[in-house]
Amino acid sequence: MLSEKICKPYCFAKDEIIPSEEASLHPLDIGLIRGYAIFDFFRTVNHRPLFLKDYLDRFIQSARKAHLDLKHDHTSLQKIITDLIDKNDLEQGGVRMVLSGGISTNHFSPSDSSLYIFCEELLLPSEEKFEKGVHLLTADYIRPVAEIKTTNYALPVYLSDQWKEHQVEDVLYHFNGIISESSRSNIFMVKEGKVITPKSNILLGITRKRILEFAPDIVQRDIALEEIREADELFMTSTTKRILPITKVDHKAIGNGTVGEITKNLMTKFLEMEANEVGQ
Amino acid sequence: MLSEKICKPYCFAKDEIIPSEEASLHPLDIGLIRGYAIFDFFRTVNHRPLFLKDYLDRFIQSARKAHLDLKHDHTSLQKIITDLIDKNDLEQGGVRMVLSGGISTNHFSPSDSSLYIFCEELLLPSEEKFEKGVHLLTADYIRPVAEIKTTNYALPVYLSDQWKEHQVEDVLYHFNGIISESSRSNIFMVKEGKVITPKSNILLGITRKRILEFAPDIVQRDIALEEIREADELFMTSTTKRILPITKVDHKAIGNGTVGEITKNLMTKFLEMEANEVGQ
Repeated sequence: MLSEKICKPYCFAKDEIIPSEEASLHPLDIGLIRGYAIFDFFRTVNHRPLFLKDYLDRFIQSARKAHLDLKHDHTSLQKIITDLIDKNDLEQGGVRMVLSGGISTNHFSPSDSSLYIFCEELLLPSEEKFEKGVHLLTADYIRPVAEIKTTNYALPVYLSDQWKEHQVEDVLYHFNGIISESSRSNIFMVKEGKVITPKSNILLGITRKRILEFAPDIVQRDIALEEIREADELFMTSTTKRILPITKVDHKAIGNGTVGEITKNLMTKFLEMEANEVGQ
Repeated sequence: MLSEKICKPYCFAKDEIIPSEEASLHPLDIGLIRGYAIFDFFRTVNHRPLFLKDYLDRFIQSARKAHLDLKHDHTSLQKIITDLIDKNDLEQGGVRMVLSGGISTNHFSPSDSSLYIFCEELLLPSEEKFEKGVHLLTADYIRPVAEIKTTNYALPVYLSDQWKEHQVEDVLYHFNGIISESSRSNIFMVKEGKVITPKSNILLGITRKRILEFAPDIVQRDIALEEIREADELFMTSTTKRILPITKVDHKAIGNGTVGEITKNLMTKFLEMEANEVGQ
């Protein structure tokens, strides 16, 4: 029995809207046996999907780049999503779209993909995390084909066993001395009043994109791990986190260890833009 | 409708032996949405599972290291496998065991795992490949937590789109100038009569283990990518490939571009050992 903590009563699977409990994937789908699938995740605010066009653009592009056959276009996906939000009465929630690699005769090459769309409760960071900031641990890793939103989270799920013990939020990936991203967020650094964010080997986050739109003076360039340790402020961005301050990396304080003014200012601006988007 | 090309009629799923068509996984299992699962794969010869103890040891260890809850021990797994081989009349075939990460309330941390066991047709390399050798392309990559047999194959599946075009068999991973493994095989090099195989950042293959048992003079050490290019002979080992010669890497011939004598000799010895194991 699936609880509402896992997902809302109705989902899209087998090409129609059905009870979420009845959704199924054959275990020989390479989505399971080769971890080969793509996904995307967005929020609803007042029953409206936030920044939907951006998320659909990215989902459709991920499918194409991963050589997966998505049988739906923008219009068709939008219709399914609107129906699902209605049927689940999803006022404030998360919508997860997953496209599996399919069942393959050689158990390796992508074949007939299956599309799944689920509505979920939002797992938002606590107020305390926004006020005090969160902690990260560094990990020497770079995501292969980072620009595609694949379901390849084997390393961070494996590492997450230690996160509770160390009270950390996530990992910060670095490779050859250059940072890229966190396992589920983009990273921004503030140094001497300038905001800087990595430009390569990252997933191009929608929250990141929107921040760059209202703050076009943010610099996009490679950032050394050493620079992070000397940063004045640090924050991470994602669909559920929006802008979440980072106050410690590897147990060492960033700046003076509190949430900085530039981070707070960007948080306010982001919430304004979001309210504007949904007509609040 | 699942064809026999995909799997045999009966499998183990939902804690019992059922028709393979009825096996299912909920798509919100982190085995799909985070690509977090482990597996193993072995062969049957004359209805007998080959080197079963080794494969079960590794599967049980993979589960433990990946923090997944496997509710079966050696004896229980062996009973299920024997019943499945009987029921599917699997004379010469492959057996795939998969343990998923489970449905998780935070859509990330491992939870209640599900065990699946399928019987499959063997996809063996052609005779021509054993006679002429196969080709590899190098890829700058290292598998995270390589010692666990995870389902994390996102990169090689992504790259495999190019393999047909280039007529290559697989990729050869290297990282910081050191080779490790192929996406589904271990690698051995021959230079001046000595056989050498990587010792770290690899999955410890069962075929590799058996070869090291009958050829204990094989050296286990780091191998530079440059050494591979200057090797006299090169071969890969895996459950389905046994010992498969590699005659080209990145379109350049290894040695004189034909299958070498030491490789041929080890192939003969491996087949003898296998026949001995199943009492042929």
